[in-house]
Amino acid sequence: MEGFGEAMYTHKFQKRVRYGETDQMGYLYYGRYADLYEIGRVEMLRSLGITYREMEKEMGIMLPVKSLQMRFVRPANYDELLTIKTTLRELPDSDITFHVEVFNEKNKLVNGGSVRLVFVEMETNKTILAPDFLIEKLKPYFKEIGN
Amino acid sequence: MEGFGEAMYTHKFQKRVRYGETDQMGYLYYGRYADLYEIGRVEMLRSLGITYREMEKEMGIMLPVKSLQMRFVRPANYDELLTIKTTLRELPDSDITFHVEVFNEKNKLVNGGSVRLVFVEMETNKTILAPDFLIEKLKPYFKEIGN
Amino acid sequence: MEGFGEAMYTHKFQKRVRYGETDQMGYLYYGRYADLYEIGRVEMLRSLGITYREMEKEMGIMLPVKSLQMRFVRPANYDELLTIKTTLRELPDSDITFHVEVFNEKNKLVNGGSVRLVFVEMETNKTILAPDFLIEKLKPYFKEIGN
Amino acid sequence: MEGFGEAMYTHKFQKRVRYGETDQMGYLYYGRYADLYEIGRVEMLRSLGITYREMEKEMGIMLPVKSLQMRFVRPANYDELLTIKTTLRELPDSDITFHVEVFNEKNKLVNGGSVRLVFVEMETNKTILAPDFLIEKLKPYFKEIGN
Repeated sequence: MEGFGEAMYTHKFQKRVRYGETDQMGYLYYGRYADLYEIGRVEMLRSLGITYREMEKEMGIMLPVKSLQMRFVRPANYDELLTIKTTLRELPDSDITFHVEVFNEKNKLVNGGSVRLVFVEMETNKTILAPDFLIEKLKPYFKEIGN
Repeated sequence: MEGFGEAMYTHKFQKRVRYGETDQMGYLYYGRYADLYEIGRVEMLRSLGITYREMEKEMGIMLPVKSLQMRFVRPANYDELLTIKTTLRELPDSDITFHVEVFNEKNKLVNGGSVRLVFVEMETNKTILAPDFLIEKLKPYFKEIGN
Repeated sequence: MEGFGEAMYTHKFQKRVRYGETDQMGYLYYGRYADLYEIGRVEMLRSLGITYREMEKEMGIMLPVKSLQMRFVRPANYDELLTIKTTLRELPDSDITFHVEVFNEKNKLVNGGSVRLVFVEMETNKTILAPDFLIEKLKPYFKEIGN
Repeated sequence: MEGFGEAMYTHKFQKRVRYGETDQMGYLYYGRYADLYEIGRVEMLRSLGITYREMEKEMGIMLPVKSLQMRFVRPANYDELLTIKTTLRELPDSDITFHVEVFNEKNKLVNGGSVRLVFVEMETNKTILAPDFLIEKLKPYFKEIGN
């Protein structure tokens, strides 16, 4: 969070490219990036003191993915330690959008994109608004700065 | 290919949801759809008499993915026989875009999106135009109809 | 089923090696063979008129894996159409053991092994004996032949 | 390394169970354990100052898996932080066997097994003996203790 009017929450997490995740081009398979995005958002929530496991198990809320978009800038190689940078640019309401950038060991952008999820009450299988405990955790990072 | 001016190539392929592809929500994990998209485009090429394996091995051309977008309409369940419908709406030139729709057993849309790839000459690691043999195979489906 | 005293049930199913399943050696990743074994046993059950999905959903029986062993004889390549041959050599009782052989397009053995599962009643989370409907389906293939 | 005659090398590494690795039973899918075993042995090598990536890329040696066996003791749940304990009980010669135990957060055994690999010179595609640099790194842990 830097500068005037910058309201967001960002979290970084590292993940190594494993052999089973490479393909015969020798790169991280394009289909495994969605797994990185998931790791990014789950670890971001953990950094706020929220575990997705508890959201499902104890609060009965699940977050199915509604849309995903990514662009592939350069390949990631076997054994590279990638940095997954996950950012919330807005407070969630009826949905939550995580912006993700994946960097390689030289801090070059490998992949960037976003994923949008909704909140579903498991008991009724209905979509709900972002739960209060999540909003409360995030609010401090989204205070209006200036005026 | 139906009707006036409709120029495209469409291919359908079926794939069952396997246990290892489900997650604890009981659905096909969102990260596995990229695998379905790959199956769709590879089988479309095969339907044209082109194998991606040979493109890589014999012609030294690979097709890295540049961008991917998908929306998730409804979940796919374990053991469902999904239909992957893959469509080319334009002849490829410097890139090729596959439009994909995934349907469940009741023929309801599960997921839709598109994936854009480029052609790379493996020897030089440079992007090239779509190779002639591919254009030749596709041309009959993209003839101007009418006027 | 051929010959004197041969009592077993065998089923074959084909599965192509997909790009995302290869690794940078250019082979089917060793960790993906367990997925093939699962496909083999599920399709064997389907060939008997039993779907694993229904066993879980309607009969509340699940089959967790207890042990797995495999040897890797030769690599499987991208895009190869593998044949998964799954065999029951004995009627199941408190457990069920599937013997699996994976062959490549030239009918050479790629991988062989076995996987042992138990029957668990989901409601009580207790192990049970193989359910009657399964035994009934299998019995005809395990009749003593000769004397 | 404890006690008289105990000559071995053990390494521990932690890995969290990710959503995409669970199945609809709510457990880590049985097919993903091979991935854990790979992580275990790669990180053990790294703890010795050896990266598998360099072995392949710079020394042209690859280690295909020849056999794998595992037993599944209890399920691992979503989001659990597993400990992969990887042990060499003997100095490698024509092959190398990693013994693996996976423990859950309560330090209960989840899965145990072993995986045997051979050394292949990529240029000739022939099996070779364990390379000297590996033996040298391991020797100190396998000195005869006592008499």
